[in-house]
Amino acid sequence: MAAPRDSDSPHELDFALAAKLLDAQPFTRLVGARLTEFGDGAATIEVDIRPELHQQNGFLHGGVLSYAADNALTFAGGAVLGAAVLTGGFSIQYVRPSTGRILIARAQVMHGGRRQAVVRCDLSTADEEGTEKLCALAQGTILSVTQG
Amino acid sequence: MAAPRDSDSPHELDFALAAKLLDAQPFTRLVGARLTEFGDGAATIEVDIRPELHQQNGFLHGGVLSYAADNALTFAGGAVLGAAVLTGGFSIQYVRPSTGRILIARAQVMHGGRRQAVVRCDLSTADEEGTEKLCALAQGTILSVTQG
Amino acid sequence: MAAPRDSDSPHELDFALAAKLLDAQPFTRLVGARLTEFGDGAATIEVDIRPELHQQNGFLHGGVLSYAADNALTFAGGAVLGAAVLTGGFSIQYVRPSTGRILIARAQVMHGGRRQAVVRCDLSTADEEGTEKLCALAQGTILSVTQG
Amino acid sequence: MAAPRDSDSPHELDFALAAKLLDAQPFTRLVGARLTEFGDGAATIEVDIRPELHQQNGFLHGGVLSYAADNALTFAGGAVLGAAVLTGGFSIQYVRPSTGRILIARAQVMHGGRRQAVVRCDLSTADEEGTEKLCALAQGTILSVTQG
Repeated sequence: MAAPRDSDSPHELDFALAAKLLDAQPFTRLVGARLTEFGDGAATIEVDIRPELHQQNGFLHGGVLSYAADNALTFAGGAVLGAAVLTGGFSIQYVRPSTGRILIARAQVMHGGRRQAVVRCDLSTADEEGTEKLCALAQGTILSVTQG
Repeated sequence: MAAPRDSDSPHELDFALAAKLLDAQPFTRLVGARLTEFGDGAATIEVDIRPELHQQNGFLHGGVLSYAADNALTFAGGAVLGAAVLTGGFSIQYVRPSTGRILIARAQVMHGGRRQAVVRCDLSTADEEGTEKLCALAQGTILSVTQG
Repeated sequence: MAAPRDSDSPHELDFALAAKLLDAQPFTRLVGARLTEFGDGAATIEVDIRPELHQQNGFLHGGVLSYAADNALTFAGGAVLGAAVLTGGFSIQYVRPSTGRILIARAQVMHGGRRQAVVRCDLSTADEEGTEKLCALAQGTILSVTQG
Repeated sequence: MAAPRDSDSPHELDFALAAKLLDAQPFTRLVGARLTEFGDGAATIEVDIRPELHQQNGFLHGGVLSYAADNALTFAGGAVLGAAVLTGGFSIQYVRPSTGRILIARAQVMHGGRRQAVVRCDLSTADEEGTEKLCALAQGTILSVTQG
């Protein structure tokens, strides 16, 4: 995220600030995503699925899933490393073609050190009744860009 | 992609058909991407970088890079497996924060079998003079969904 | 694993058969690994850590971790897909340099379809008191090689 | 690798020193691997294929491939970052069951910064005539552990 940081609390991010940072991303507004949970090394990002996010056969485009994985992994990493982080990279495996009403990307830090966090993310879609189906799994590394 | 296929030539995709398939993806139109090369197990997708595609610090959002990687890998796979393919998954490593005028995602099949192709993708940004900088590297698996 | 299968129960693997398959791998005997849990889409492989498995600084070699991840992912996949499987690939992130008495690789199928399973693996080392430390995380895809 | 470094040339590794570091790994001696090329952000590791390295069907065990990928990626990273490096993680995709006389893992740094290198590795087997077949592809991140 590499956001400007409050010099008094360089490493602290709370839900309100994290939500503000996410909303300050123009691409996030283009996709239409929101932060719904944040803290304790975890972050959840949700996207309302609308036709603009589809691929050519009416399923959710894989690029929306990878966008959500990238962002959820990064924000979960930020929950332990602070706001000044960069996404090192991630791996994503798709489980099934995705349909539904909401995409939910839940990321959880599995190990956080001083310089990096290793994070996993489960991506599901929820239908009108709230029933969820797993649609992809991701795992990545988030790097602190803070000096020292 | 899993697109409807011409029953006489179930496995053939040429540049015109591939470009049409890409353009039939609503999310691709939202991002603003185009196919610029296709064939011989390769595909190149380009995106004009505009402020809507940024993250909060004015760099290209990682989700745009992962979208482009996903799609370029899949179309390169389709160049050897035919139109009826699914993205199994991929890994992406970011090299540097990205700026520039155009994002270029070049994917190349490294091995294509009957059921799957293993594909690599180099992602660069080009500035006004056309000078390119590598910004991410991806590697993934594309699966044929054709029976038999 | 792609092992010969009992024609009456082509897709069934139980602990005894899975342990026998693992032990039939010469490289597994060279490394010194054993199956300790199997079933319900899960597999655990353990390795007694001895100096022969170290890198040059006295830590467990990353190649032993990646061997254990590869095998645990594959056997967990085999627990849902049957014995005739191939490892498509995996991603592994190292968390810390590893020491201890036993390496434990626990793999769990997150989603199993007809043709493939997506599997995660947590790798920890246990010391003399049995205290475990997470040392790596892996995620991969296991493919069924059964026709039809 | 995180090896002790000559304080006068903290970041330099040449072929002789790299080969010595590799040979100082007990697990490398157990597998039977050697460095055959090193420098310019590249490293090649070769393994003579013998029955002890097989899985249960007479093919080279995937764990030998992942060991070779891990090590070749790390040494290539060390060629640009110096001896004090750690493997952050990598992704490997298997292309076919592997047989042959020699396994050859060729790694090349695609981008090297101050703190990390992103590296790719092609793994092939060569038969008696020296004909090579691609058997796996890997991509990973190597981290510098040098302070500053």
